This record gives sequence, C-alpha cells and structure tokens, in this order.
Amino acid sequence: MRGTMIVAALLLSACASAPAPTGEATPALSTQEILDQSPASDWRPLDPENTLYMELPEGRVIIELAPQFAPNHANNIRTLTRAGFFDNSAILRSQDNYVVQWGRPDGDEAPRGAAAETVAGEISVPSGSVQFSRFVDPDTYAAQVGYSDGFPVARGGGQTWLVHCYGIVGVGRGEGLDSGSGESLYAVNGQMTRNLDRNITLVGRVVQGMDILSTMKRGTGPLGFYETAEERTPIRTVRLAADVPAAERTDLETLRTDSATWARLVDSRRTRRDSFFSANPVNRLGVCNIAVPVRAVRAG
Amino acid sequence: MRGTMIVAALLLSACASAPAPTGEATPALSTQEILDQSPASDWRPLDPENTLYMELPEGRVIIELAPQFAPNHANNIRTLTRAGFFDNSAILRSQDNYVVQWGRPDGDEAPRGAAAETVAGEISVPSGSVQFSRFVDPDTYAAQVGYSDGFPVARGGGQTWLVHCYGIVGVGRGEGLDSGSGESLYAVNGQMTRNLDRNITLVGRVVQGMDILSTMKRGTGPLGFYETAEERTPIRTVRLAADVPAAERTDLETLRTDSATWARLVDSRRTRRDSFFSANPVNRLGVCNIAVPVRAVRAG
Repeated sequence: MRGTMIVAALLLSACASAPAPTGEATPALSTQEILDQSPASDWRPLDPENTLYMELPEGRVIIELAPQFAPNHANNIRTLTRAGFFDNSAILRSQDNYVVQWGRPDGDEAPRGAAAETVAGEISVPSGSVQFSRFVDPDTYAAQVGYSDGFPVARGGGQTWLVHCYGIVGVGRGEGLDSGSGESLYAVNGQMTRNLDRNITLVGRVVQGMDILSTMKRGTGPLGFYETAEERTPIRTVRLAADVPAAERTDLETLRTDSATWARLVDSRRTRRDSFFSANPVNRLGVCNIAVPVRAVRAG
Repeated sequence: MRGTMIVAALLLSACASAPAPTGEATPALSTQEILDQSPASDWRPLDPENTLYMELPEGRVIIELAPQFAPNHANNIRTLTRAGFFDNSAILRSQDNYVVQWGRPDGDEAPRGAAAETVAGEISVPSGSVQFSRFVDPDTYAAQVGYSDGFPVARGGGQTWLVHCYGIVGVGRGEGLDSGSGESLYAVNGQMTRNLDRNITLVGRVVQGMDILSTMKRGTGPLGFYETAEERTPIRTVRLAADVPAAERTDLETLRTDSATWARLVDSRRTRRDSFFSANPVNRLGVCNIAVPVRAVRAG
C-alpha cells in the first residue's frame, strides 16, 4: 500500500488530463489532447533554409533561425555553415543556469566563405513587421510579452524583440553590440536570462536536442568555459537542412503561434484545470513558461 | 587579430568590473568586489540541523532546509534522513527544463524511524512571521516578490510563500496537497516553474552541487523518469551536517538577504553598469534572476 503511495508521490506534475469537476465549463484537456484536436493548418513546416542540424556524439540538435528578427546574422550564419566553418567545431562553454556556447577555438584557420567578420547588432524590429500573440499577464522586464511566429518576444516603444527564454539561441560577442558575427552561438540552459534582452542579438531557438545541450558537464573555467580541449564535446558538422539529402532530414513542423490551437494551449497552461492544481489553478502565465510544440511532419 | 576577436566574442557575459563612464555616480562593481567589501556580519553560517549532505558519485550536493516555511516537512525529512531512509536511494527522474527528483523506488522496505507517512501541505506562512526584502519590479505570478532569509519568496493576502526558482527543493506528492511526506524530493533544473507555487510544498534550496543535479541525463520515460534501474544515479547517503564528523563537513555561510550587501548586490544586478550592458542597462530584476551567494566559512 505504501509502495503505491510512493510511486504516486513521485508524480509531482500531472500531465494526463483529469475529469472536469461537475459544473466546470471548460474540460481539463491535456496538451496532447489539445494538439490531437488541432487542424493541420495550425502547423507550419520548418523552412529548410532556416533550419540548422548540429551533429553531436549524443545526437542531432536542431535550431530554427529567425531571419524575421535578425536577417543579417541569419544570413552570415548560413554563409559560415555552408563554408564548413562549424564542421569539427566544439562545445566550448557550459555555465550552470546560464548558457551553453559553441564555435571554433581555432577560428582563424577555419573556412568561412564570404562571411562578414562582424555584423551590426539586430536587437529589435518595428512592431508592425511581425505577428504578435500577446500574453495578458504582467512581465518583469517589458511592457508586453507574447509570441511571434513561434518565438518568445517582448514589445514596447513601437519595437518588438526576441527574449531570452530557455532554448533561445544568441550570438556571442565581445564589447559592443556590433562585435558578433555568428561564429560563436549560445543557447540558454536555465532560468530566463532576460537581462541580456536587447544587449545581444538573438537569432534562433533550439527545437530538438535541448536535452543534449543542457546536460553538458559544466566547464570549470571562468564563465563555464572548458579548461582543456579534451573536455569539449566535438561538433562533427553543422548543416542547413536544405543542404541535407531528403533521406537524412528530420522533417519537423511547429504549431503556429497565431493559431486557435495555440490560444487554447496558452489558456490551458495559464488556468490549470487538472486536479493536481486544485489548490491553486494559477491563472497566470509567463512568456518563458510554455513550450511551442514541435513534431514530426505528418504525412499529408 | 581575428583570433583575438573570436575569443572576445565568446565572452557574452562580462563578469569582471569595468571602469565607470565619466560622470557616473555609482561605480560598476562586480559581484565579487561587492562581496569582498562585505562585513562578516552580513553573512550567516548554515545551521547543521538544517543542512543535508547528499553524496553522489559526482560529489556532494548540499541542501539548506527552510523550517521557517515548512516546519513539519523539514522535521519529517530530518527523521527520515537520520533513520537512513535515503541511504542507497537514487535519482529517479530528470526532466528537461523542469525538475530532477530523487527518493527510493523500494520505499516499503526502507528504514524510516518515526517519520510520518504523509504530512499536511505547508504552502504559505503569515507574512508577519518572516523577514522580507522586497524587489521593486512587477512579477508575473504574485503581487510582491523578494527574498526571505536566503530564499526567494512571494507575498500577497497577508501570506508569504517560497517560489519555484532554479535550485529550489520541493516535496513530491500525489493527488492532494497533503499526500507528500518528504520521502521524494525534487529540485528545479530549468526555467522557474512558478505554476507549482502554492500547489506543492517547498522545503529548501540547493546551495552546492546544483551543477551535478542539473546535468543528469534526461530520463526517457513519462515525466523524465528513468525506465531502468541502471539509468539511475545512486545516492550513497544523505546525512544531516549535524551528524557528520567535523572533519568531513563542508562549512558554508550564506549572505544575509536582510543585509546592506544584499541590497547592493540586488542593485548591481538590476542596473547593469558594466560596459557590456551599455546598450540596455536593464533596470529590472526578476525574483529568480539572482543567486544568493554561498561561500566557505571564513576563519574568524
């Protein structure tokens, strides 16, 4: 009997749906049930020209670029990638509750095609240029937050910008907004690092394999850099999906964040109707407290 | 020359202090400089009766209990620990960007002394009973947030409660707030899971070794549970520091969050005066976007 209790006690988060209490208007659907009911038109395939495959010993990490927010950086990263700059590169840094970062320690010798050595910072775009599905709750760091085409964003002063949620991908830089190039990239591996918003160019998001990047042993040098070459995880190749033979591709689609299904999902995460949350149904949702669903493309 | 740029570009976060721009009143002190200037009275040693040592193959994880917020759970965990309940236990679950959880898969057979089988939920305390250093910026989930005696908290309706920031330790439970016991505990390993606030009892924080817990390979079963016993990382022992011979202790002290040094640190993290943040000095700080300093006790 106690054995049963102990197993139950382990389930601190109830993913499964629960029956709606009598009289409650909205049934408690699980995320999976909401997605199962979604029409195909609420999904979009990832664009192969905006999709990076990074091949690690532990598997493939997939990144979606955001040219709508950082067109010049996305372009420079495509150029570097096609030149083979990231082949035989490495994970260089893993700082707990901050970022994992990769690139080449020997950048001078790497092929780079016609890539620029630096790209001017791209930290926000005019709000009129991008879609925006707003969240209703207050945010600590910005006047408004929400999602734009699959990416977490903030909005204010007529501008919209990507924000540092878990799994977002940014451009390593030195002093000055204009000192990065895309030769070194990072992903947020812990709590949202929103202090970096509009201080550094964000250029994409990890859509598969974040579990690989997040569990990289932490580096023991300053800022979590590895102190020896042996500690670095090698990156065999980085390729654009467009350059990969069809048979080797991972064809993914992502839920449109301007869709009715997304609105249902946001509502279900904001107001928790499953019985696990009966003490406090929350009724709040932070911009970084929801994952945008990504799945294998369904046969049409 | 490019080599230098690339190394610099890797440093996306400037930890070192930078000279203050001419005319700026407050110099840009680094966290370390602020701590180096702190008086000894701004620190408190961890209480050995509230400190757990969890011994893993990768090293010692140290947890500070919070009896001021969850006295009955802290007491039950002490009883279980002293009975040897957690010796030869294991990491049972590692879910990406959510929690890592531990306990015994064979709880029925484990020694438990006089520990209760369940403990009523302890999700908030009267605000008058605890210290509170308030943060000034809005929070998505609560009317007020800040720190209390080293722990992140929220406040509203005359009550104060611990909140789910990175590294907080909570009590696994089944259905119902009163179904946990402390036999299974978890730590937040990613983005703050604030939806769990006041839905589950929080009982402590990881003060050393979170880098070990956060990099546990993710489990492939539902909710990140490991599917086989072989995948689980063994926990050799969990002991109260008070029960460990002095020579084997890790004597730590933590910055008091009611101290002037804490106020300086909060200010320095909120308004970023170092040159890396010249584009946007932020001027905001979320409750989960600061770490409470912990260090080895200094010889008096």
